[in-house]
Amino acid sequence: MREAIEDLLAAYAEAIDDGALERWPQFFTEDGEYHIITRESHAAGLPIGIMYCGSRHMMEDRVQALRTANIYEPHAYRHLIGRPTIERNDSAFAVRTNFCIYRIAQDGDTVVFATGQYIDQIVEDSGTLCLRSRRVVLDSRRVDILLVLPL
Amino acid sequence: MREAIEDLLAAYAEAIDDGALERWPQFFTEDGEYHIITRESHAAGLPIGIMYCGSRHMMEDRVQALRTANIYEPHAYRHLIGRPTIERNDSAFAVRTNFCIYRIAQDGDTVVFATGQYIDQIVEDSGTLCLRSRRVVLDSRRVDILLVLPL
Amino acid sequence: MREAIEDLLAAYAEAIDDGALERWPQFFTEDGEYHIITRESHAAGLPIGIMYCGSRHMMEDRVQALRTANIYEPHAYRHLIGRPTIERNDSAFAVRTNFCIYRIAQDGDTVVFATGQYIDQIVEDSGTLCLRSRRVVLDSRRVDILLVLPL
Repeated sequence: MREAIEDLLAAYAEAIDDGALERWPQFFTEDGEYHIITRESHAAGLPIGIMYCGSRHMMEDRVQALRTANIYEPHAYRHLIGRPTIERNDSAFAVRTNFCIYRIAQDGDTVVFATGQYIDQIVEDSGTLCLRSRRVVLDSRRVDILLVLPL
Repeated sequence: MREAIEDLLAAYAEAIDDGALERWPQFFTEDGEYHIITRESHAAGLPIGIMYCGSRHMMEDRVQALRTANIYEPHAYRHLIGRPTIERNDSAFAVRTNFCIYRIAQDGDTVVFATGQYIDQIVEDSGTLCLRSRRVVLDSRRVDILLVLPL
Repeated sequence: MREAIEDLLAAYAEAIDDGALERWPQFFTEDGEYHIITRESHAAGLPIGIMYCGSRHMMEDRVQALRTANIYEPHAYRHLIGRPTIERNDSAFAVRTNFCIYRIAQDGDTVVFATGQYIDQIVEDSGTLCLRSRRVVLDSRRVDILLVLPL
């Protein structure tokens, strides 16, 4: 099962890095949740994050908005992720994975955009592994305004 | 055995990144050694490093000092580590692993703090894998003065 | 087979990071190809890259030139690579792997030198896995002039 979970995590990263944003909601269950939250808020148990999508439908809306509004400076991400820690619960796998995301601007400028940890609930949905919940916990409280693409 | 070794390496990184420093000595055998050394010194076979702990007890002392003195600017690390190269010796596993450690300051500023390679001797101690020796070989000769947390 | 492929990728990275450039051509088949190309050119299907070696012999020549000319500022790399995506074709494995390469200058200055994706064709050659083709796709169009060591 570890292999399948690692494949899911790698495929998610590759879809974002390739700019294939339409594939992003498909990594989630229909009622899947996606949070971005700072480490401080997460540690304090504060539910309010920087971004929240409460269903696959909300994610699709978000991608649609990105594709049509498109007023941000073009840029791409490159993900590097660590070895996930996996714990099996009754109904899901609780998975934690370190990440570093680099952002490449159109002029080629490359910066460490975000480091942190994915805290995921992964379930089997019609024979496929999906995210029921992905909490993107950012190490830094300084969140770049250019938070456009999914992390 | 590779799985268990990779789990150990990931758990070590996560403990530091979570700030759970009290868990750090527990990854070592009682007579475990912890070195930080530059690549140049390592290549030249120079035994003198930047930091040295010669037993689990010394590590515990060091954590205690960090917790009480606590005069450094608060910061956190985030580790990303590569695939380990593993060779079995008579009594231990010789393991080499690339790493990159990001440092996140309290104001959120994130920098590449250190890159290098862990050179480890890993043994089984009462059924658990432990570090008998971890040599943290830093690529850079320019060592930041803020070398407080374990790497 | 995944294990063997991941070992190959890790050994390649370690050879470069250790400065053991003479080992670099040996990761390729005799007619192996090595390209460096920007993401834009790759996406546009443009065959012209930043660097090209069309055989192991050309790679050996290049290493020889590096060793003798040696007029560049000394520096080292440190690779971190992600989990490869592996697809089996008739005659080869098509493998894609995210990478980040740090460059450490002699004075210790460390920068993110390049991020991107390796796109590889890996084959079995006399019982050993080898690169028949490695395409190093760089995220950034801004290519550092100090492109000396293999990526």
